[in-house]
Amino acid sequence: MHVPTFDDVIAAHDRIRPHIHRTPVLTSRYFNELVGAELFFKCENFQKAGAFKVRGACNAVFGLGEDQAKAGVCTHSSGNHALSLSYAAGRRGIPCNVVMPRTAPQAKKDAVRGYGGVITECEASTSSREAVFAQVQARTGGEFVHPYNDPRVIAGQATCSRELLEQVEDLDCVIAPIGGGGMISGTCLTMSAIAPGVDVYAAEPLNADDAYRSFKAGRIIVDDAPETVADGLKVPLKDLTWHFVSNHVADIFTATEEEIIAAMKLTWQRMKIVMEPSCAVPLATLLKNKDVFRGRRVGVIITGGNVDLDTLPWMKG
Amino acid sequence: MHVPTFDDVIAAHDRIRPHIHRTPVLTSRYFNELVGAELFFKCENFQKAGAFKVRGACNAVFGLGEDQAKAGVCTHSSGNHALSLSYAAGRRGIPCNVVMPRTAPQAKKDAVRGYGGVITECEASTSSREAVFAQVQARTGGEFVHPYNDPRVIAGQATCSRELLEQVEDLDCVIAPIGGGGMISGTCLTMSAIAPGVDVYAAEPLNADDAYRSFKAGRIIVDDAPETVADGLKVPLKDLTWHFVSNHVADIFTATEEEIIAAMKLTWQRMKIVMEPSCAVPLATLLKNKDVFRGRRVGVIITGGNVDLDTLPWMKG
Repeated sequence: MHVPTFDDVIAAHDRIRPHIHRTPVLTSRYFNELVGAELFFKCENFQKAGAFKVRGACNAVFGLGEDQAKAGVCTHSSGNHALSLSYAAGRRGIPCNVVMPRTAPQAKKDAVRGYGGVITECEASTSSREAVFAQVQARTGGEFVHPYNDPRVIAGQATCSRELLEQVEDLDCVIAPIGGGGMISGTCLTMSAIAPGVDVYAAEPLNADDAYRSFKAGRIIVDDAPETVADGLKVPLKDLTWHFVSNHVADIFTATEEEIIAAMKLTWQRMKIVMEPSCAVPLATLLKNKDVFRGRRVGVIITGGNVDLDTLPWMKG
Repeated sequence: MHVPTFDDVIAAHDRIRPHIHRTPVLTSRYFNELVGAELFFKCENFQKAGAFKVRGACNAVFGLGEDQAKAGVCTHSSGNHALSLSYAAGRRGIPCNVVMPRTAPQAKKDAVRGYGGVITECEASTSSREAVFAQVQARTGGEFVHPYNDPRVIAGQATCSRELLEQVEDLDCVIAPIGGGGMISGTCLTMSAIAPGVDVYAAEPLNADDAYRSFKAGRIIVDDAPETVADGLKVPLKDLTWHFVSNHVADIFTATEEEIIAAMKLTWQRMKIVMEPSCAVPLATLLKNKDVFRGRRVGVIITGGNVDLDTLPWMKG
């Protein structure tokens, strides 16, 4: 297991800067009053390809040697990593093959193809995804860029909280959603290196709370096919992300589907930004755990904005 | 008729600055390539109360003498002026009575009440609105702040393009939606005073194209109850806004309902911002009139973000 260091983060930031946005930090008096804290929303929904995952994908793609690059890259992903890797590969002009669940949002599939990525579909379970991917990788010979359990990817995601620290003074803590743990690991990497006083919290759907249960049990617990509206957060922790989560995360909070959807709709209404259900999980948990955050300066990572506008979750049923 | 001057705009800006946001200007490589121009989106959907109209409303409310202010303010509005005036009156601590069409979006009615405004409902026609309003005004004695045909309101709206000129160098032209003409009049006022080389274009729904027909005919033409998804743009020009439109506007373009809805959805998808149907009219007309804008630096006013998230127009039917 190669654990990335903050030197890797600095190198990643220099490598990816031409290909990403330095995303803005928004504030909302309404949400500050609702939570009783000062919130700073780091808007990765405005990022290239619509999600923070383009940071890690670009770091992996632009870090490849010329020979490696010729065979292209491949991956499996519930969506945002797939389109981020397709974007990065397109910028470098190399092939990109991705395995996506049949149930992934149509908007994400369309975006992958728009960036030139080639999709092979699988079932929604982790077991199906890994089996189909093994075939695709053998056939194409592309370099595997794992969506989160990869030191290049984690070093790339870590540039997000590095920017946040430059943009907001005197942060007390930061909260981000957790699925496989790539963003949280990157956040832990940056904070532990240059802002060790900043607590890192993770937020997870109750319906896919494997990271929460792993954290409490002290070992990785895996669910095969959890069901949640936060489609980016269904995947399990792996050894590298578990290293960061188990060593650096202060706590993990969960929220129900109803709480996530309500927080998502409220954010659209009040902040006028389009964001994914996954991004609403931190706000949903802030509203449930006000005592933890009262009076503190809280960074909130808005992770992405790639939603199917035809099937918004509050429209269902 | 009192025509406001640029001195009024400077005074308005100083008066309202504590109560409004200096909204950001966003860009999108995707839309630049689609239109073949350089677009600068002035995001008044992020404005206080969710719309540019808070500029004019604050200028009117905070310009009142103490005695006048005690009786409060009143108005009629399809939505955003109602909630902007309620916001402004709330900030000053004076009463606000508004007449709104029964058919106005529920989100706007809720927001008016959230700011402390008192609503009296009318039918959707201009004739009904004006009749009901006369009763409300007589009963409350409040100062009438017209949604657009008022020099205080136009001077307030004019601060938006003043900011845009500070934020973007070397603009060639600016385009905004036109309903009653308040934003367009303010834009004409600022540009004619300090940037006379910047062309001002207006964009209007084909289904409510009274300003377009007025502009071509050289006199005000009024429709009583036009039907369009762009609910903020149903009202007619009045003498003061006609003064600016007839003297300063370079051209008016129209778009169909389908074109407006497609442009709105595309903006949500690609720019990740929540905006009203009215705001999509300029982009819809830019896409139809690429020859006019090719290679130019174009300011695009995104006028507001107060939409009913439960009834998005692409979900209907």
